[in-house]
Amino acid sequence: MTEQAIAYARKNAPAFLEELKTLVRIPSISTLPENRADMQRTAEWLADHLRRLGFDRVTILPTAKHPVVCGECLKAGKNQPTLLYYGHYDVQPPDPLNLWKTPPFEPTIIGDNMFGRGASDMKGQMVAFLEALESLAHSGGFPVNLKVLLEGEEEIGSPSLRGFIEQHKEMLACTYCLNGDGGIQAPDIPSITYTLRGMTYFEIRVHGPAGDLHSGEFGGAVENPANVLCRLIAGMHDAQGRITLPGFYDQVRPLSKQERAEGRRPLRGDDWWLEHTGAPALGGGEMGYTPLERSTARPTLDVNGLLSGFTGEGSKTVLPATAMAKFSMRLVPDQDPEQILRSLGRYLEKHMPPTVTWELLEHSSCKPGIIERDSAAAQTAVRAFEQVWEKKPIFTRQGGSIPVVSLFKELLGADSLLLGFGLPDDNLHAPNEKLHLPSFQRGVEVFIRYLHMAAAGG
Amino acid sequence: MTEQAIAYARKNAPAFLEELKTLVRIPSISTLPENRADMQRTAEWLADHLRRLGFDRVTILPTAKHPVVCGECLKAGKNQPTLLYYGHYDVQPPDPLNLWKTPPFEPTIIGDNMFGRGASDMKGQMVAFLEALESLAHSGGFPVNLKVLLEGEEEIGSPSLRGFIEQHKEMLACTYCLNGDGGIQAPDIPSITYTLRGMTYFEIRVHGPAGDLHSGEFGGAVENPANVLCRLIAGMHDAQGRITLPGFYDQVRPLSKQERAEGRRPLRGDDWWLEHTGAPALGGGEMGYTPLERSTARPTLDVNGLLSGFTGEGSKTVLPATAMAKFSMRLVPDQDPEQILRSLGRYLEKHMPPTVTWELLEHSSCKPGIIERDSAAAQTAVRAFEQVWEKKPIFTRQGGSIPVVSLFKELLGADSLLLGFGLPDDNLHAPNEKLHLPSFQRGVEVFIRYLHMAAAGG
Repeated sequence: MTEQAIAYARKNAPAFLEELKTLVRIPSISTLPENRADMQRTAEWLADHLRRLGFDRVTILPTAKHPVVCGECLKAGKNQPTLLYYGHYDVQPPDPLNLWKTPPFEPTIIGDNMFGRGASDMKGQMVAFLEALESLAHSGGFPVNLKVLLEGEEEIGSPSLRGFIEQHKEMLACTYCLNGDGGIQAPDIPSITYTLRGMTYFEIRVHGPAGDLHSGEFGGAVENPANVLCRLIAGMHDAQGRITLPGFYDQVRPLSKQERAEGRRPLRGDDWWLEHTGAPALGGGEMGYTPLERSTARPTLDVNGLLSGFTGEGSKTVLPATAMAKFSMRLVPDQDPEQILRSLGRYLEKHMPPTVTWELLEHSSCKPGIIERDSAAAQTAVRAFEQVWEKKPIFTRQGGSIPVVSLFKELLGADSLLLGFGLPDDNLHAPNEKLHLPSFQRGVEVFIRYLHMAAAGG
Repeated sequence: MTEQAIAYARKNAPAFLEELKTLVRIPSISTLPENRADMQRTAEWLADHLRRLGFDRVTILPTAKHPVVCGECLKAGKNQPTLLYYGHYDVQPPDPLNLWKTPPFEPTIIGDNMFGRGASDMKGQMVAFLEALESLAHSGGFPVNLKVLLEGEEEIGSPSLRGFIEQHKEMLACTYCLNGDGGIQAPDIPSITYTLRGMTYFEIRVHGPAGDLHSGEFGGAVENPANVLCRLIAGMHDAQGRITLPGFYDQVRPLSKQERAEGRRPLRGDDWWLEHTGAPALGGGEMGYTPLERSTARPTLDVNGLLSGFTGEGSKTVLPATAMAKFSMRLVPDQDPEQILRSLGRYLEKHMPPTVTWELLEHSSCKPGIIERDSAAAQTAVRAFEQVWEKKPIFTRQGGSIPVVSLFKELLGADSLLLGFGLPDDNLHAPNEKLHLPSFQRGVEVFIRYLHMAAAGG
């Protein structure tokens, strides 16, 4: 049955690609109000697809913002596990548009890659799963019971998801979760992610004078909120690149010897980072850790956006009334966003001068996630990868955040196994996002093999 | 003759206001390419006006950017001094537009004030001088020889002015200059400015990765140019609010005891600064100096603009490829912009990490200016003010920069007497710029009296 499904998947690969293209063409940008109708269209496309695969109770459930697509197929019987697949159908905005080499919403295949916003994050990942299901449906049916939850708010921090899971605990009850929002190390290095970083995203606005002032007439007399903002942001790191918020590292779980050894893996040497980021040189960041560790196993604080005063062409001599920074911290096990928020609050209250007023907005937060390497789900995945790639996968840590992993653990008591096939150079959230098509195809086959093995109790 | 001219000016005040309104209606924004035609219209309006006043050789001379309006009237004879009047007809952009209570280019009189971009800086100041000339022309003619130079690039740092003066030294030769681009302390506090701050305006661009990166996948691995920029800007001040660029204060002329006493004048107590800026509290800036001293007698470094990464609504988890700051330093006698540029270069070379590349653009620079208090020109002004206001003017320092003052000194050997009547709360360069009409009217009368006294050899 497995090999029959694999043959089906290979034969239908061209048709699968066309379906993926249709999905990528819809600009389902969750953060922009003008794309609301596109969000709805995307949800309907997915619901139709699930119905055609034989799913029952397929529904598009509204939330305060964007709807959730749900469905289930429980025909495998009570002796089989029930796996809940999680995906998200929303994408990041494509800006800056001028840096795209192909239109972001017209998927374009160049060589082994398909370019387009959302091609890798994560429409390609969802479609890999759906095509595996189609292959199984034509080869004896689904070997396990399945549920799906496809949300439309992942790229804006999943504001409705907690409430949604709380409201639908029974509908979502499962043995464990498959989360498609992940990736592998390289086309020839299959890997399984066992930790995720958490995140907490803030916006700070510093207000000085009531309006912009002439910097000649008033410069020096009153505090400049842009200078204050720079001072505050700069003060959040020390000279060793460590974050200075009080108690910030208190809950960081120490890395084991094995993990420290893995952090020095040659697979991501300096050349890799230089090639994949275009940075002029490595260095900076927290001292004493490799770039791989700094971006996956250690917490960070990055400015995501800055805006103040006059930013057009030429010069304008203003002392700006307001300065704004968006910044986020990536957290590692066992840091807690609530504790970090308190820590940030203490830092700001201590260092913000009385010459300005300020606001702190928390845009979104999620806890870091971890799955035990020796769990049955993880070990089944090891075998499925091994069959498709003909080599053992490695265990890795992921730098990004998947809030739903911690929510499923907290609210459903369910662990999440990450089964995604994106690549580190897929330009996620950036111009020229792309999907590596051979990895996409292997992903379809891993899903087919994995679901059969999971059914056998593996 | 003087009293006849004063009577003419008072009788014709309503007509003068209409002429000022016509001038303010033209959006002569020098920094925006789309206002190029408005610049030309403004220059033509002024040239026509000078011709009607009886000026000879009135010409609109092109430069690389915006033209200069020149003219002369040398009928007073060889025994009389020749005064060169300087003005500028360009204005700052009106943005942010949403903070204006009246349309910026539809002058609106509310109570004692006329609101509009350029009403005070400095179309109102130029028109005060032109109306004084009209009053004199109808009352026996100009008592001294006059030349005028009205430029269109003051608000963008006067890039063409040096070359223009060098090319027209003979045409511009004069006994000394009257510079209309100044102000008084308050409607009831006549004052004469004896120092101006210089300025040097920069833009720094810090480049990290080749494109925006996902802050989860790459945060920590590569340096974030926005964090670097904040660190650099923050490092330009120490904890005492002093500027840390190497040798920055080496050329600052110490303040005399009298000057330090004047810096503690009650006319600008804390209440004044709070009321006129809307800042939540005073403090910040260089320790050990009053707000008046910090904004006129001490050098400063202000961020004028910041831009990096995602600045729209909501959140986007990018590690930005680039971060930009516009910032300017206000300089005091005897600081030299060239020395400051070298000092900034040394600072940046020392502190910029090798993990980023960077560019430094110098937008504009001018030296600080000073005129001796006991010069004949200054003492004549004291008497003219005293007659109009019926009280003695005070000597003050101005926080802003007037590049032409140092250029006239350097290239023509001519000192500049500042005769302008703007007020500190005129919202220069900011929304809701306005002109205080009673001060404008007194300005007309000071010019009439001053020119008669200057003719008498005063």
